[in-house]
Amino acid sequence: MTAPAPSFAQTMERLRAEVDAALDARMPAETEPPAVLHRAMRYSVFAGGKRVRPILCLLSAEAAGGDRRAALAPAMALELLHTYTLIHDDLPSMDNDGLRRGRPTAHRVFGEANAILSGDALLTLAFELLAEAPAPPPYPPGALPLELARAAGSRGVAGGQYEDLAAEAQPDVTPERLERIHRWKTASLIAAACRMGAIAAAGAPETVAALGAYGESVGLAFQIADDVLNAVSTPEQLGKAVGSDAERGKATYVALFGIEASRARARALVAEAIARLDGLPGPAEPLRELACFVVERER
Amino acid sequence: MTAPAPSFAQTMERLRAEVDAALDARMPAETEPPAVLHRAMRYSVFAGGKRVRPILCLLSAEAAGGDRRAALAPAMALELLHTYTLIHDDLPSMDNDGLRRGRPTAHRVFGEANAILSGDALLTLAFELLAEAPAPPPYPPGALPLELARAAGSRGVAGGQYEDLAAEAQPDVTPERLERIHRWKTASLIAAACRMGAIAAAGAPETVAALGAYGESVGLAFQIADDVLNAVSTPEQLGKAVGSDAERGKATYVALFGIEASRARARALVAEAIARLDGLPGPAEPLRELACFVVERER
Repeated sequence: MTAPAPSFAQTMERLRAEVDAALDARMPAETEPPAVLHRAMRYSVFAGGKRVRPILCLLSAEAAGGDRRAALAPAMALELLHTYTLIHDDLPSMDNDGLRRGRPTAHRVFGEANAILSGDALLTLAFELLAEAPAPPPYPPGALPLELARAAGSRGVAGGQYEDLAAEAQPDVTPERLERIHRWKTASLIAAACRMGAIAAAGAPETVAALGAYGESVGLAFQIADDVLNAVSTPEQLGKAVGSDAERGKATYVALFGIEASRARARALVAEAIARLDGLPGPAEPLRELACFVVERER
Repeated sequence: MTAPAPSFAQTMERLRAEVDAALDARMPAETEPPAVLHRAMRYSVFAGGKRVRPILCLLSAEAAGGDRRAALAPAMALELLHTYTLIHDDLPSMDNDGLRRGRPTAHRVFGEANAILSGDALLTLAFELLAEAPAPPPYPPGALPLELARAAGSRGVAGGQYEDLAAEAQPDVTPERLERIHRWKTASLIAAACRMGAIAAAGAPETVAALGAYGESVGLAFQIADDVLNAVSTPEQLGKAVGSDAERGKATYVALFGIEASRARARALVAEAIARLDGLPGPAEPLRELACFVVERER
């Protein structure tokens, strides 16, 4: 008699714990100087995040037919990089958010300068981890940091945040422009998470491409679901102020299309994502479930 | 009849032009979206910097017996990273500087959010360039980004800036603490510049170590010279407000030891640095001259 297969929730929880343990072991200790800066870095990294990006990276390594342990360094790097973007996005000069995941944001706790520096140091640490993790053949050794840098830079997350802020001043944002914001700000990094997992596991180039396309669609769905959650949740569910997007006149799917059409678009993107998983060399069921989770989650 | 050897000033100018041309060719165009962000990145990179770090990197490649073209990617990455630190250091929540090199600082021209994002994007681009430049044997392929990340992170430039700001609130900074600030904030990156040049040129490990020690001493001398310049220059010479360190109660060598003792310490460090250059496999004369230039410069 074999044990029953773990549930999706159990898989997510186990992977989350693996990522957290690895991050805890690898990040500078809070006691190590400069202690305040290291405390600020850990405060934001260990703030109860869902670890969606690192889990996608690990699951993509398995779906590519490899061992997920090969993808642990890129998984950690992705979470460090994602955390830096949250810290900087929350700053007074950007989204000016005082709460994240139910706790005061980094600049509220450590001051603005230290928040900026802790983000800078997390971004730098992400690339330090990747420098220690050369990609396996047939990929060039720098393939993993190249993926991350392209996804995160001026034509990725940083550019998306710029466009997002610029759009606030211009109420008539077109659907095309909104989609570009979301592709750059959210989908690019989620796609990179999947590609990096597949590359770290030495998956074939067509496997990397399929998982990247899966991630791109999941990433867009994730952002649309975020817009919907911001419009319909209670503050307790969301861990931050709700309706804040509308108040700010922020361009969102909900503002452009309404809640129901936004939900339908997210579901269609999830279906597209799942279709990309056919014929992969390794197990893809958790990635299917994760894609569905993205649009069904409540925070 | 052979042409006379180029003067030090000519060498510096030629290398500066090489670095600038390479950066101009590699950075996103101002017209490419997101255009404002790309304009902000270029505004700060092409602001008349002396290119000390990339030039040290190129000269170190030659001093290690290699071709300086092998060190062009790390040289560019160093300048991009250095520029990001200047943009973030100038922010209102940090040093709150409105002028740099005689021009308004990035946040004065592009706004605070765009300044932060342009710095983030430059830091990311630095690692993108290094991802495309695997180190030659006997070094692991990620040796160059590893050097840069360690020099720039929480126990490097970012940590040094944290300590520098923290020291402003505490007037009784010890000489030991001041030296740690300078080692982290300035010397670590200059030492990394020299080490990276030697690594990119496949220099022997002892050559890398000698050039790193040279860079560490030059870096400390550079920072002390900066403190002296801030205390004695005119605004026209410096391109920014003078005496601003003292006004801010900032911990400096000048505040602790006075101008003459600071100058003497800088000269002693330059002598130490030059002693490290004996017996290198390639030409080291430009590095000797550069070390002297560091303490003799007027801006």
